[in-house]
Amino acid sequence: MTRILVAGGLGFIGSHLVERLLRREDVAECVVVDNLWTGSWRNLAHVEDSRLQILVEDVERVCLAGKFDEIYHLASPASPPWYMAQPLRTISANVVGALRLLDVLAPGGQMAYTSTSEVYGEPLVSPQPESYRGFVDCTGPRASYDESKRCVEAMLFEAHRAQGVRIKVVRLFNVFGPRTRVDDGRAVSNFVTQALRGRPITVFGDGAQTRSWGYIDDIIKGLERYFWADGVDYPGPLNIGNDREIPVLEVAEFIQRRFPKCPIVHLPAPPQDPTNRRPDLSLANRVLPGWTSLVPYEEGVERTIAWFRREMRPGAAAKRPLVANASAKAIGQNLRLV
Amino acid sequence: MTRILVAGGLGFIGSHLVERLLRREDVAECVVVDNLWTGSWRNLAHVEDSRLQILVEDVERVCLAGKFDEIYHLASPASPPWYMAQPLRTISANVVGALRLLDVLAPGGQMAYTSTSEVYGEPLVSPQPESYRGFVDCTGPRASYDESKRCVEAMLFEAHRAQGVRIKVVRLFNVFGPRTRVDDGRAVSNFVTQALRGRPITVFGDGAQTRSWGYIDDIIKGLERYFWADGVDYPGPLNIGNDREIPVLEVAEFIQRRFPKCPIVHLPAPPQDPTNRRPDLSLANRVLPGWTSLVPYEEGVERTIAWFRREMRPGAAAKRPLVANASAKAIGQNLRLV
Repeated sequence: MTRILVAGGLGFIGSHLVERLLRREDVAECVVVDNLWTGSWRNLAHVEDSRLQILVEDVERVCLAGKFDEIYHLASPASPPWYMAQPLRTISANVVGALRLLDVLAPGGQMAYTSTSEVYGEPLVSPQPESYRGFVDCTGPRASYDESKRCVEAMLFEAHRAQGVRIKVVRLFNVFGPRTRVDDGRAVSNFVTQALRGRPITVFGDGAQTRSWGYIDDIIKGLERYFWADGVDYPGPLNIGNDREIPVLEVAEFIQRRFPKCPIVHLPAPPQDPTNRRPDLSLANRVLPGWTSLVPYEEGVERTIAWFRREMRPGAAAKRPLVANASAKAIGQNLRLV
Repeated sequence: MTRILVAGGLGFIGSHLVERLLRREDVAECVVVDNLWTGSWRNLAHVEDSRLQILVEDVERVCLAGKFDEIYHLASPASPPWYMAQPLRTISANVVGALRLLDVLAPGGQMAYTSTSEVYGEPLVSPQPESYRGFVDCTGPRASYDESKRCVEAMLFEAHRAQGVRIKVVRLFNVFGPRTRVDDGRAVSNFVTQALRGRPITVFGDGAQTRSWGYIDDIIKGLERYFWADGVDYPGPLNIGNDREIPVLEVAEFIQRRFPKCPIVHLPAPPQDPTNRRPDLSLANRVLPGWTSLVPYEEGVERTIAWFRREMRPGAAAKRPLVANASAKAIGQNLRLV
């Protein structure tokens, strides 16, 4: 039986991953460590499964008993305003977190890490293949995120080379969908929540910057296949994303057509906002044959609007469990099917 | 009065820096933290100064009382065979070390960090200005060093931006000279110690790869001026090095002419050995007017040969203090003028 640890398991992507993991019959125990910095109780509040335990603690400091056969390290903010507000904490969560997690990996166990397309920085190559070394300003305002992700990649590939640790490293491109925070700060969730509140839709810069929007269900399917379902041996790095490249303004205009009373306004672009981003999926196509994005952004945005509409209605927050911090088993018992 | 901490102060560069710091009359206390991984007691064994305290401990774990007005973080191996043998420890020393050191920096204090030209990776631009974002393979065999240095730069510039921490970040190019370890593993010390033992001089690859060899006295002078003597306010990053670019083979041949019985032999190049390296010193010339390398490599190599000749003679190791690990004050008292 398999003992699993998910750091950041109450987050947007982490919580979806936990649900997939709990579908596995070989999983005896799934321990989530999350400090609720950007994660939320609500993301797993509907899950009733005695194998799930939740520890509310920083990944760098959590006390863990025993070793884990599979570890998934997703403990990091991913949105610029969040990591730029607490850059050292971001570095610590990623790098110190990874060192700590390697300490509790069972011999022969697998360490999986969600890295990011941000390791490519402002890419001079498009689409970006995994072999592209990137163009990151390591002294810049986004560097706490970009460089800590790069540093953890370095750590894991060196642990793999020097110690034979089994690793799986993915580089996620922009992901969106249900369970993004209302105050996440990135484009799709910003636009949708602004529109639902009847406010102007704010586009940073001229909106010509492109992103490749991956809908959460498609991305999670890729992660599930790569991390465990397909029995893949390849350590990565592996781009996972949607390679349909869309200007930010196009998404804003799509949402604005659904909410015609909300004007689009432009705000100054944040510093070093990448001008383009598109995954080269050649390797993903070989490693995960047949895997592809099925949900176009238009459909994904519709689903995201529907989810945020429910989420933002008065009283929705009452679904949050009352317990704010407690030990694992106790919390596990407080999770109820909603 | 100033309270100073030097992490890695028993190392090659660190020990030279400590000596310069002890010339300052405003320094009340100079605490060295060094775990003797690549540092050596002998590097400061000749210093008798009651202000100097030495703690033999990992920088990540050391117990320190109070705060420090100036912190110098040099705690990292710098030679590929050393950091490639213990990549996770290298990342930890740099990144976790830096986080720990920021915790003990006094309000308004200055944190100085010796970063490296390796942040440029395999440079596609020559000479390398500080604005060059580099070409580092973050999953490669040198990444533990390169990426942890980049990550600490990110951390310090973000601490500067977000919290107003005063920082000084230098990017050192190849430095050589007395106090390099006999088993350091880099070119000049390898060649010299091989020649002194009457063994073949081993050049990795064809030797056409270039380096810019900075003699320790010149480099330390630059650090002294930048870190404290000139009252500079610029946070960096600042290239410090000799911009005379020399093929590795030329240095080997220079030494071989002094030791004609030692043949030059070629060994396979280590993976991802950079093909070229040369600092753009335009910024250094503005920040430190008049500072330049005075010691050509030929003269520096002669001095290094003379030093290694003394260092490697039978009985030289007996100068090492007998105490291998003890608390600060006790060790301070064990340091005797040799």
